[in-house]
Amino acid sequence: MRTGVFSAFGISAVLAVAAPSAAASETSAVKAAPNGIELPAGYKDWPVISSSHRVDNNTLRVIVGNDVAVRAAREGHTNPWPDGAILGKLVWKEAAKDSWPKAIAPAEFVHAEFMFKDAAKYAGNGTGWGWARWVGMDQTPYGKDAGFGQECIACHTPVKANDWVFTLPAQLP
Amino acid sequence: MRTGVFSAFGISAVLAVAAPSAAASETSAVKAAPNGIELPAGYKDWPVISSSHRVDNNTLRVIVGNDVAVRAAREGHTNPWPDGAILGKLVWKEAAKDSWPKAIAPAEFVHAEFMFKDAAKYAGNGTGWGWARWVGMDQTPYGKDAGFGQECIACHTPVKANDWVFTLPAQLP
Repeated sequence: MRTGVFSAFGISAVLAVAAPSAAASETSAVKAAPNGIELPAGYKDWPVISSSHRVDNNTLRVIVGNDVAVRAAREGHTNPWPDGAILGKLVWKEAAKDSWPKAIAPAEFVHAEFMFKDAAKYAGNGTGWGWARWVGMDQTPYGKDAGFGQECIACHTPVKANDWVFTLPAQLP
Repeated sequence: MRTGVFSAFGISAVLAVAAPSAAASETSAVKAAPNGIELPAGYKDWPVISSSHRVDNNTLRVIVGNDVAVRAAREGHTNPWPDGAILGKLVWKEAAKDSWPKAIAPAEFVHAEFMFKDAAKYAGNGTGWGWARWVGMDQTPYGKDAGFGQECIACHTPVKANDWVFTLPAQLP
């Protein structure tokens, strides 16, 4: 009967897949991080806050933010960032452009990682931020268990005085 | 009777001016390019299409797009790009990050430059694109006269076969 069920719902299933926005379908398809944090819907549509090129691990990054984060960045309220701010970092391996070899551009997608500011909710880890990362094009949650955030925090400790954030919003008109 | 007409509509006209978003007011403050192209409203809120680091002139770039361009990028319809697509490039001078010196990040804002696809409207310059750039934090239009676009086109000629566009959309989940 399984075949029959699939046949009966075949057409509507196809329509259901076609209908939702990209943002909605992407969230439902991706597993939560081991600490329970969900991939933010629509993050690929968020505005740019900054970018970087890490020459130590040969990656290009664009830092984006949700509406709370972008407003805070533009108003200069980033130390501390306000509750509700989410910062996203999109990371790619680097490659010289064929069309302009002196330009380094994104190659394979590496991961998308996020910081979620909520001073009360995330007071327990000592930072006021929730941490999460989804790896690769299949967006596999990073970390074996909920303790993975300690690895994020250890790396961000040098910027503890900047509310644990490496990113300084890029100057924009 | 004209004065009477203006008086009758005075209040609603004031409300109409007060209501627009920040994006609309920012456009009105910036002069059009010498070829008549206006700075696109809201470009700072556009999603990311790619990024680059030009090591020949020490600048970091993030390439963003309007809704038509982002849809085309995600669907792989970029050669040619569809009419209505606008690509924006945000350019900053580079600087090593104090907090992580092996990361190169944006320093001073250099300019925002745009390509506007309309095969019919811009057939005359041989590319099907309108070209414009606004320089610096005060967004001064680039170019002495309407012929400045030839400078853009000359530089983009190596990618003529890619619909005159250097950017290849970055891989995203």
